[in-house]
Amino acid sequence: MKAKILAFGEVMMRLEAPNYRTVAQTRSLDFAFSGTSVNVLSGLSHLGYQTELMTTLPDNSLGYAAASYIRSLGVGTSAVSFDGDYIGMYVLEKGFGTRISEVTYSNRSESAFCQSLESHYSIEYLRSGTHIHFCGISLAINEQIREVTLHVAEKAKALGLTLSFDCNFRPKLWKGGYEEARPVYERMLALADYVSMTEKDAMSILGMETGATQRKDQVEALLPKVAQTYSIAAIAGTLRETNASAPTIQGFLVQEGRVDFSTEHSVAILDRIGTGDGFFSGFLAAMYEGKSSKDIIEWATAAGVLAHTTYGDSPITTRSAIEKCRQNQQVDVER
Amino acid sequence: MKAKILAFGEVMMRLEAPNYRTVAQTRSLDFAFSGTSVNVLSGLSHLGYQTELMTTLPDNSLGYAAASYIRSLGVGTSAVSFDGDYIGMYVLEKGFGTRISEVTYSNRSESAFCQSLESHYSIEYLRSGTHIHFCGISLAINEQIREVTLHVAEKAKALGLTLSFDCNFRPKLWKGGYEEARPVYERMLALADYVSMTEKDAMSILGMETGATQRKDQVEALLPKVAQTYSIAAIAGTLRETNASAPTIQGFLVQEGRVDFSTEHSVAILDRIGTGDGFFSGFLAAMYEGKSSKDIIEWATAAGVLAHTTYGDSPITTRSAIEKCRQNQQVDVER
Amino acid sequence: MKAKILAFGEVMMRLEAPNYRTVAQTRSLDFAFSGTSVNVLSGLSHLGYQTELMTTLPDNSLGYAAASYIRSLGVGTSAVSFDGDYIGMYVLEKGFGTRISEVTYSNRSESAFCQSLESHYSIEYLRSGTHIHFCGISLAINEQIREVTLHVAEKAKALGLTLSFDCNFRPKLWKGGYEEARPVYERMLALADYVSMTEKDAMSILGMETGATQRKDQVEALLPKVAQTYSIAAIAGTLRETNASAPTIQGFLVQEGRVDFSTEHSVAILDRIGTGDGFFSGFLAAMYEGKSSKDIIEWATAAGVLAHTTYGDSPITTRSAIEKCRQNQQVDVER
Amino acid sequence: MKAKILAFGEVMMRLEAPNYRTVAQTRSLDFAFSGTSVNVLSGLSHLGYQTELMTTLPDNSLGYAAASYIRSLGVGTSAVSFDGDYIGMYVLEKGFGTRISEVTYSNRSESAFCQSLESHYSIEYLRSGTHIHFCGISLAINEQIREVTLHVAEKAKALGLTLSFDCNFRPKLWKGGYEEARPVYERMLALADYVSMTEKDAMSILGMETGATQRKDQVEALLPKVAQTYSIAAIAGTLRETNASAPTIQGFLVQEGRVDFSTEHSVAILDRIGTGDGFFSGFLAAMYEGKSSKDIIEWATAAGVLAHTTYGDSPITTRSAIEKCRQNQQVDVER
Amino acid sequence: MKAKILAFGEVMMRLEAPNYRTVAQTRSLDFAFSGTSVNVLSGLSHLGYQTELMTTLPDNSLGYAAASYIRSLGVGTSAVSFDGDYIGMYVLEKGFGTRISEVTYSNRSESAFCQSLESHYSIEYLRSGTHIHFCGISLAINEQIREVTLHVAEKAKALGLTLSFDCNFRPKLWKGGYEEARPVYERMLALADYVSMTEKDAMSILGMETGATQRKDQVEALLPKVAQTYSIAAIAGTLRETNASAPTIQGFLVQEGRVDFSTEHSVAILDRIGTGDGFFSGFLAAMYEGKSSKDIIEWATAAGVLAHTTYGDSPITTRSAIEKCRQNQQVDVER
Amino acid sequence: MKAKILAFGEVMMRLEAPNYRTVAQTRSLDFAFSGTSVNVLSGLSHLGYQTELMTTLPDNSLGYAAASYIRSLGVGTSAVSFDGDYIGMYVLEKGFGTRISEVTYSNRSESAFCQSLESHYSIEYLRSGTHIHFCGISLAINEQIREVTLHVAEKAKALGLTLSFDCNFRPKLWKGGYEEARPVYERMLALADYVSMTEKDAMSILGMETGATQRKDQVEALLPKVAQTYSIAAIAGTLRETNASAPTIQGFLVQEGRVDFSTEHSVAILDRIGTGDGFFSGFLAAMYEGKSSKDIIEWATAAGVLAHTTYGDSPITTRSAIEKCRQNQQVDVER
Ligand SMILES: [Ca+2]
Ligand SMILES: [Ca+2]
Ligand SMILES: [Ca+2]
Ligand SMILES: [Ca+2]
Ligand SMILES: [Ca+2]
Ligand SMILES: [Ca+2]
Ligand SMILES: [Ca+2]
Ligand SMILES: [Ca+2]
Ligand SMILES: [Ca+2]
Ligand SMILES: [Ca+2]
Ligand SMILES: [Ca+2]
Ligand SMILES: [Ca+2]
Ligand code: NI
Ligand code: NI
Ligand code: NI
Ligand code: NI
Ligand code: NI
Ligand code: NI
Ligand code: NI
Ligand code: NI
Ligand code: NI
Ligand code: NI
Ligand code: NI
Ligand code: NI
Ligand code: NI
Ligand code: NI
Ligand code: NI
Ligand code: NI
Ligand code: NI
Ligand code: NI
Repeated sequence: MKAKILAFGEVMMRLEAPNYRTVAQTRSLDFAFSGTSVNVLSGLSHLGYQTELMTTLPDNSLGYAAASYIRSLGVGTSAVSFDGDYIGMYVLEKGFGTRISEVTYSNRSESAFCQSLESHYSIEYLRSGTHIHFCGISLAINEQIREVTLHVAEKAKALGLTLSFDCNFRPKLWKGGYEEARPVYERMLALADYVSMTEKDAMSILGMETGATQRKDQVEALLPKVAQTYSIAAIAGTLRETNASAPTIQGFLVQEGRVDFSTEHSVAILDRIGTGDGFFSGFLAAMYEGKSSKDIIEWATAAGVLAHTTYGDSPITTRSAIEKCRQNQQVDVER
Repeated sequence: MKAKILAFGEVMMRLEAPNYRTVAQTRSLDFAFSGTSVNVLSGLSHLGYQTELMTTLPDNSLGYAAASYIRSLGVGTSAVSFDGDYIGMYVLEKGFGTRISEVTYSNRSESAFCQSLESHYSIEYLRSGTHIHFCGISLAINEQIREVTLHVAEKAKALGLTLSFDCNFRPKLWKGGYEEARPVYERMLALADYVSMTEKDAMSILGMETGATQRKDQVEALLPKVAQTYSIAAIAGTLRETNASAPTIQGFLVQEGRVDFSTEHSVAILDRIGTGDGFFSGFLAAMYEGKSSKDIIEWATAAGVLAHTTYGDSPITTRSAIEKCRQNQQVDVER
Repeated sequence: MKAKILAFGEVMMRLEAPNYRTVAQTRSLDFAFSGTSVNVLSGLSHLGYQTELMTTLPDNSLGYAAASYIRSLGVGTSAVSFDGDYIGMYVLEKGFGTRISEVTYSNRSESAFCQSLESHYSIEYLRSGTHIHFCGISLAINEQIREVTLHVAEKAKALGLTLSFDCNFRPKLWKGGYEEARPVYERMLALADYVSMTEKDAMSILGMETGATQRKDQVEALLPKVAQTYSIAAIAGTLRETNASAPTIQGFLVQEGRVDFSTEHSVAILDRIGTGDGFFSGFLAAMYEGKSSKDIIEWATAAGVLAHTTYGDSPITTRSAIEKCRQNQQVDVER
Repeated sequence: MKAKILAFGEVMMRLEAPNYRTVAQTRSLDFAFSGTSVNVLSGLSHLGYQTELMTTLPDNSLGYAAASYIRSLGVGTSAVSFDGDYIGMYVLEKGFGTRISEVTYSNRSESAFCQSLESHYSIEYLRSGTHIHFCGISLAINEQIREVTLHVAEKAKALGLTLSFDCNFRPKLWKGGYEEARPVYERMLALADYVSMTEKDAMSILGMETGATQRKDQVEALLPKVAQTYSIAAIAGTLRETNASAPTIQGFLVQEGRVDFSTEHSVAILDRIGTGDGFFSGFLAAMYEGKSSKDIIEWATAAGVLAHTTYGDSPITTRSAIEKCRQNQQVDVER
Repeated sequence: MKAKILAFGEVMMRLEAPNYRTVAQTRSLDFAFSGTSVNVLSGLSHLGYQTELMTTLPDNSLGYAAASYIRSLGVGTSAVSFDGDYIGMYVLEKGFGTRISEVTYSNRSESAFCQSLESHYSIEYLRSGTHIHFCGISLAINEQIREVTLHVAEKAKALGLTLSFDCNFRPKLWKGGYEEARPVYERMLALADYVSMTEKDAMSILGMETGATQRKDQVEALLPKVAQTYSIAAIAGTLRETNASAPTIQGFLVQEGRVDFSTEHSVAILDRIGTGDGFFSGFLAAMYEGKSSKDIIEWATAAGVLAHTTYGDSPITTRSAIEKCRQNQQVDVER
Repeated sequence: MKAKILAFGEVMMRLEAPNYRTVAQTRSLDFAFSGTSVNVLSGLSHLGYQTELMTTLPDNSLGYAAASYIRSLGVGTSAVSFDGDYIGMYVLEKGFGTRISEVTYSNRSESAFCQSLESHYSIEYLRSGTHIHFCGISLAINEQIREVTLHVAEKAKALGLTLSFDCNFRPKLWKGGYEEARPVYERMLALADYVSMTEKDAMSILGMETGATQRKDQVEALLPKVAQTYSIAAIAGTLRETNASAPTIQGFLVQEGRVDFSTEHSVAILDRIGTGDGFFSGFLAAMYEGKSSKDIIEWATAAGVLAHTTYGDSPITTRSAIEKCRQNQQVDVER
């Protein structure tokens, strides 16, 4: 049976000051619609998977434009509810060199998604899929959407879908800190089959400890335990080094108690946001295609590297581009 | 003593789909910052008046960009508080011919201004001015900002400032309808010296009645009574006819129990929003310059007509352009 | 049973010189993807219908971008074949006043669609729909696609789908003139249930004659005969008057031997191309919703009028906008 | 022998605030290079004539860009001198409806052209042409370029070239008013064979008088006398009515003591500047093609009307567009 | 006698997705017109040479825009035929970092140039020049244009013009592979005086062999033999190393049996396409100016390096920029 | 007492070809208004200082747009005179890699500022400030503005303001070379309290000599002497290394006979112009906040480094960004 992938989560409108300007330096903003759920499905859609987004969009011009945009990425919108008044927005001022990118959010708590009810998410939609993806941000914004998210996850599990989860911990959104987050994350990890997280999440959110001081050693010391504790089939993540001259990225895959590391790639960064979603969509695709663990992590990492080089948050990389990146092919122009 | 004009009210970020497209048809939005208070002060600043905006902007990149933009209009931002997280936004899809313009708002109730407290508005700022303008929208959004607005108006009155008020009734913002609005408006009208309203406001908000059926007759029947009842020195407003071929606009001025009507102008419409603010800034300037009642209403109407022909919400018309419009001068190019 | 509408036809890339410039006056072109089939389905999708496009797109970056764009209009692309190398293109230099718009085509005969084979159009796709739309241009470009089009239409008829057909006669594409076209059109009209044509098509393509000299009289004299001869349930079309000051449009509907004319609308023209598709999508929707013949032609005409006021070839008008246009409501801004 | 047309005059950089904004409302300006000489030659080049511009451009990036732009119009730049430092510039804020367009100039007196010497204009260039066009602005800016212009005209006359002259009187540039201008214009009119002027020029610059009060009567009373006095083979010009609803234009031609008037056209105005040059290039082309006086003035007027509907100062109208405009053909789209 | 350089070949419309986006991510494309012949002449024109393009462009809006653009580069269009309907187009999606640029072509075989006949290329045009440049792509697209190209080259040779030829082998365009190409290239090499090729062309197209394994050794082993076999006065080409961190380029010149190598430059790449044409225009200019072989190859390489740093396909580098690049001058800003 | 900083100098309109194009390659230019005085005040305004610009702008659309822009930077325009006709302009063609940026100026000598008189600069404005900044360019353009500048500086000194001066020597503007400049600079240095200069200025303008050959040694040998000779409280400047791979910048501060050097930063360059003004505004802010000499030079250098990474000439860096840059914090995105 071919996988049909669902994802549950918020859609945001990304507004971006063009050409490395600040908002005060421009009179127009480029925009798109993204979010972890959109991004992971966009990545999978571009690799040939059938996908459907489960979310709630406002019943107005912005909600319809969001749905239109999401369909343009190849992601289905049949399972989208239109209800409520607002869409979450963020404004991006892209940095340059030592100048840091800045993101300014609008009020998300009142957004159509964050105000949505369990009744917006029909069980029929869940039945139509074989896999569903969740993101830690849905657990953070307010208590209502946190509960809705967990209930949807529980229903999906009960219906036999495979669950994936991206920890995506955002400190500013958890007023109660790691203490507030821990039990919530533990409920979700227990449900999840595939998880995106790093050794830092294990130490901070889950409060785990290790004497190891190197990041790769910490991964090996902690993440297989996490997989075992929460019955997670595979954990994948990346180690990033951002020293000024040449940032690098290296993927790891925790599976059956073993950790595989990918080759280390240097990355040229056009657009930083959503690259983790590029990585995870590459991981899920490779997983569903029955590749070896070594191949899975190489594929996922190449997908993540390419997500840095493509415009926008949502991965749009093709199978052929991933293969070329894996094999480090250098071509000037494809013609 | 030269007038120094303050205005109290919300600043909104206007995002606009360019070239008569809808949001779904574009990938970039033009933007500016406006609002009744900004618009009236921009109009006055372009006619040579010293102006200061009293508002609260979020303490982030969007708030700073808003202040930067407002200063570019010649409006002072020394009396702006930076506090809170969000700025009100609206998205404009401009219509064409029989296709109607559509405006989609973000959540305003949570905006920095609509969450601001009386303590944000220092009495020192009020003391620095001779006149202060208010708008009916500040009375509508939530109870907190309604009370803050009325208290600021009362303090200004007590300090001896001249008060102006634009009724600007927006039905969607008053859940309790005219019944809820009436006592609030009555409090503000009692404080106000100069008011922008029409015969429709008198009938709906104030519940007044007349047997007259023509709009000009209704103006003459009702508005002098309003002026008397609430001790208003002058009421000004416009009658608009929007039949397809050639929309027209005619101003009226109610002063000392008498109504003056301006000549009727046909209007070419480049940008509809904020034209009432253009009219009222022309009215205030003419009033402060001691013109005759006939001249005042001609000036105000010309300013309103020109506001339709200028890009953006905020009036930027010069004294010389108003004079030419009044005299109906036809010149191709000024060079 | 709810209608599911298919359409068969070519997708073209529209490249447009912005701001009324010519190609020689600009360094960038705006673009979109359109075509009669895309346009009719876009119109229906925006009125709530489920739609699927049957076409062949090139298996390259432009073909994928076209599919992405078409999905953004709400039109399904599951029935699209990706094969071949080229997409048809046209460049639009929009006119102004007495300056006429100019369209320059690239080579269409070699396009993926015009080179496609009957085997590209799976009978499964036809089975999934209840209605299928065709366009006269598919009959014109080359003999191969002419035959493929007629065979697909015959199969659809045999499977019990309802067929609609837009005559869309383009003189430049028929080297053999009306003589070459007549038997081809007759085959298609025989298959069709709903047809878009005018009295001019009856006289030129079908060679019919009448002594009437007024256009409305010619419609009444000729089109009921066409409907009877070719067993067409309904014929709909528009009469356009383009005298400089104020162009007008009036729709007509031929049904059960009777002709209904809509009220005459004056039209503001933002974008002329595809307005006939706007009219016909309004007609089909009204037809499927069981409206009276008078209501059908009013709805269709309003949809056509609004298509002139919206950016781009593809209709995107909502049900509520059509209702307002029908009732000639004048609102400045919807907010 | 086929005519080869030269023109002598200044090239200016036109910088334009886009979308009816003012400079203060935008962060980018569209630009082009124009001027009466460029415009007349552009018009003739688009009608198939060989043309060469005689001017001086600065020897820097802006001068090269100007020459590149002028060649793109089909005008030769072999006779251009590159010397000096500056190019004349003007900034255009396009008006809308009753809002008047505004033009702001940079310092022209110091421009490469206005500082150029007679030695920049080689007699070889003059020898290569059969006709040369001049403009009144070259006589106005400073005394140096005034003398250079008159000397070049005298040389051209001596070499047997046909001379045309556009009066183009700009009051702001003549500090000494009409008194200063009269003898200078008289010198040029004496040299000229074809002239663009109106009855107003005859009355103001040349100080002529007439009892007629209607513009057409004044034309008939004065311009045949001007032609006789200064030995001018033909004078052409336009009468413009700019009443708000629908501006009109009507051409006149004074030849052999007789005046012909064209039909009156209503004009849609996209871009006002340079339309007189469009008229005069149509006049010269029709003249060189031996048309009747009635046909000449109809052609010239159609060329002028179309210049209003095309983007930019420089006419780019084709022969076929002029023919359609003359015959008042109404076509929606040429395809 | 000063050289007047002709070039024969196809003009293509380059359409480019801006800001590193893909076509699916944008709604506008930047465009220009280029091609090997245009590029080499643009390079030479910017170095002061008189140039004329020999090609056929479609007799429509796109053909006229192409000619306008080419003239703007300083290249003459007097020898251009306007005939046929289509222009070749390609769409460029520029890569970033490890993401590869992608080029999608429209159908070239039906283009005005590729359908043109020998009769389009008047012998008068050939007589007007002293040198003519050809490109291997003209030999590849279809048999008709292949034969036309060879006949034009033979006529030019017979008339005593100097011939240059850029091998530019594109594997996708030769269905019969190297076997089909060899005799065609041999005919052209026999005619050519100056050739752009590399050691790879010698091995693949000409089937030559060498035991050398290093690229520079292969150049020295093979290309002097090629020059001798086909009586070629000079062969020039570049060796590119594209390892990720810092791509480099090194030129070589084969003349009188000897090979000179330039210094190795590292290159910053803004626009990769057409850089070979930049190199070859630098080579031709240096050759015609009688520089030493060492200086020729340094000049050519600097011109090629600078072509990487300039926007667009067509070289626009000045003499002074090439001198600075050769001497490795580091200046921040020239002012 | 809080410092209120004035600056005296010319405002220029910066016109920039976008996307690394040349002017000939584009049809629009981005623009802003800048100049040393604007830039230093913009930097200080963004760090919280109250600032006022003293200049003369033309009394037209460009002058008003300049004032509007300057206010948008947070700089006061109450002390601006509007008089005269022209504004200085420069056109920037940004380089890429080894291609050098090119700047083309319009005529500055005739600009409103360079033609302004001492009477334009009211002593009241000087009285309102505590500090005033000058720039060497004001001393260079013509004799009139040189004398006005020195007189304003003398008045400011007499009124007790602190004076700063940026040497900013531009060789092209001093026809008489260093000999002409020396006495003028000496007059200004005698007045100045804080100076921006380098060891090269000491050697060239002031004609000082040293046996030292390393730049840092020359700084230590010469600049303390300069400080002593002209009674300068502090001299600050930067040493730049622009070797291709990674340009670096290092600041130095000369105070009380001692020289402090900052750490060396590598810089990513988005926009080179005005970075010296970024450095000096950081220096002045740190000075006024009583930081240690080591901290002052680190702060100034970080401000200069960040000015390279921000769009435009005018520094807009925040206090928090400078702190992060100083501490070399690496964050991907601030959210
Ligand atoms: Ca994301
Ligand atoms: Ca990305
Ligand atoms: Ca307004
Ligand atoms: Ca407006
Ligand atoms: Ca349409
Ligand atoms: Ca449309
Ligand atoms: Ca014109
Ligand atoms: Ca024009
Ligand atoms: Ca190149
Ligand atoms: Ca290039
Ligand atoms: Ca600067
Ligand atoms: Ca900067
Ligand atoms: Ni895609
Ligand atoms: Ni991404
Ligand atoms: Ni991506
Ligand atoms: Ni303004
Ligand atoms: Ni407004
Ligand atoms: Ni306005
Ligand atoms: Ni839509
Ligand atoms: Ni269409
Ligand atoms: Ni539409
Ligand atoms: Ni043209
Ligand atoms: Ni002009
Ligand atoms: Ni024109
Ligand atoms: Ni050039
Ligand atoms: Ni090229
Ligand atoms: Ni180049
Ligand atoms: Ni700022
Ligand atoms: Ni700067
Ligand atoms: Ni900066």
